[in-house]
Amino acid sequence: MTEFELIARYFEKPAKRLHHRARLGIGDDCALLAPRAGHELAISTDMLVAGRHFFEKVDPASLGWKTLAVNLSDLAAMGARPLAFTLAIALPAIDEAWLAAFAEGLFGCATEFGCELVGGDTTRGPLNLCVTVFGEVPEGRALRRAAALVGDDVWVSGTLGGAALALQRSTTASTTLRVKLERPIPRLRLGEALVAVAHAAIDVSDGLAQDLGHVLAASDCGAELWLDAIPCQRELATEPEELRARFALAGGDDYELCFTAPVSQRAAVEHAGRTSDSAVTRIGTILERRGLRVLATQGADSRSVAPEWLAGFDHFR
Amino acid sequence: MTEFELIARYFEKPAKRLHHRARLGIGDDCALLAPRAGHELAISTDMLVAGRHFFEKVDPASLGWKTLAVNLSDLAAMGARPLAFTLAIALPAIDEAWLAAFAEGLFGCATEFGCELVGGDTTRGPLNLCVTVFGEVPEGRALRRAAALVGDDVWVSGTLGGAALALQRSTTASTTLRVKLERPIPRLRLGEALVAVAHAAIDVSDGLAQDLGHVLAASDCGAELWLDAIPCQRELATEPEELRARFALAGGDDYELCFTAPVSQRAAVEHAGRTSDSAVTRIGTILERRGLRVLATQGADSRSVAPEWLAGFDHFR
Repeated sequence: MTEFELIARYFEKPAKRLHHRARLGIGDDCALLAPRAGHELAISTDMLVAGRHFFEKVDPASLGWKTLAVNLSDLAAMGARPLAFTLAIALPAIDEAWLAAFAEGLFGCATEFGCELVGGDTTRGPLNLCVTVFGEVPEGRALRRAAALVGDDVWVSGTLGGAALALQRSTTASTTLRVKLERPIPRLRLGEALVAVAHAAIDVSDGLAQDLGHVLAASDCGAELWLDAIPCQRELATEPEELRARFALAGGDDYELCFTAPVSQRAAVEHAGRTSDSAVTRIGTILERRGLRVLATQGADSRSVAPEWLAGFDHFR
Repeated sequence: MTEFELIARYFEKPAKRLHHRARLGIGDDCALLAPRAGHELAISTDMLVAGRHFFEKVDPASLGWKTLAVNLSDLAAMGARPLAFTLAIALPAIDEAWLAAFAEGLFGCATEFGCELVGGDTTRGPLNLCVTVFGEVPEGRALRRAAALVGDDVWVSGTLGGAALALQRSTTASTTLRVKLERPIPRLRLGEALVAVAHAAIDVSDGLAQDLGHVLAASDCGAELWLDAIPCQRELATEPEELRARFALAGGDDYELCFTAPVSQRAAVEHAGRTSDSAVTRIGTILERRGLRVLATQGADSRSVAPEWLAGFDHFR
């Protein structure tokens, strides 16, 4: 199969069945997009490498889903609505069964969240997947990392630690747990619902402590979290405190949203959670003093948890 | 060095010195872009793999330049003006000297053509570079592959075959020739100048015959080219006809523009060439009969060149 036949069969044809949101889709030198009046275009890119972000032998349909879903999660963290994406892919060889399954997962996610494939590149090389995703957000209203204010509540959606636990348990993980790792659901509806409500937001991809740390650095402030308030994956409830804490604070790949909102917006945040079918939990507060402290529980006399429980994941360590 | 230190030193800092065109640049979950009123956003993505698109030992500064330049060439082919780009990069290890040189070439190109780095991703893995580029084009005026009309002239900018000859001659290639291969100049000003003048356009990345073939397929028409009219790299003049023809028709990596325009626009095309400091040469004509015929020279009794001289490059062959 040539490069052009491959693109036509596995990417162009399914792309044509998607809802068209672009002015010009796949097949030219460039795609053409225009955000609606009063909107800006939010853009994010992620590169997934075999052996680093996923196992070479991972189910290709799950990989297809996740490749797009992790990028959509970045749109969710800005409060943007998906519009389109590009996919560049390096393949070690043409394996049609693999490609068919990968495309099924990828376009399953694209259909679910209304995101059109508008362009890409295919080449031979060590397996590598690079998605760039485009969404629309009302002008000047995107949820930025630098927007946290002292006194804000810190919130998180869903539960944390499930993906890390699935990775640890590997083949012995339950199906629900594996789905958390392999088919993450980007919190797009919640992100959109938070646009007029929250201040700062980020998605939890590297671990809560590290990702919230980016918000604190960008906003030039600190935070206090209460470990017993952080919603954990159900299966973690029976695990020892240290493991539970490490998975909740530093387990990556959950793709939940961590966001800050003024105290006056508590009812609005809970309403946003309900309308978007997302659990939302208040887990801490933004402080003037820089740095992140995690207390066992809320209260002036509570002890801090061990700082090594907060260590996240670095792709170059 | 951690992933975050690496991004800060080699990508964030130089990005901050570029002219800011985005509403929000590097450092958040998403970048924010908005095309000017009356404009659409043109988007293109390319993935470059070590050992396939470039030699692992290639000069990293040239690689940095080319990584962005080949994407800008896709904007040129649509008539779009550069705005911003994202870079996702997989590195086998952190080599600071390599990274510094790569960034110098990359930001050299970004500065030259007014294109701001707005986001990206870095990870460890076999060397892989994926750029997605964004430009602005007046609404409804992009130069599309599907816009060629029967009777149009076929034009090409600059000269062809230089990059392929440099690759063939390798270390014995002259400096001017190596620059053609290693530091291609995207024809952005020409592309913009052609917006109100030309019909269809494409950039010559895989070889003239193959790339023009995409225009013909998209426009549902054919074309006749005249080999002796095709402007070749100077050093090819003394080579045998077959080699000259193969390099001009199927040599890739030249990043010239091939475009079609109505006969009535000949003076306007030449004017666009002069104002953008680009040579433009008329090399053929669009026909109703599908397929591409290359004649030795213009005229009803001219012979066709051997079809195998037209074979281009396929990344999966």
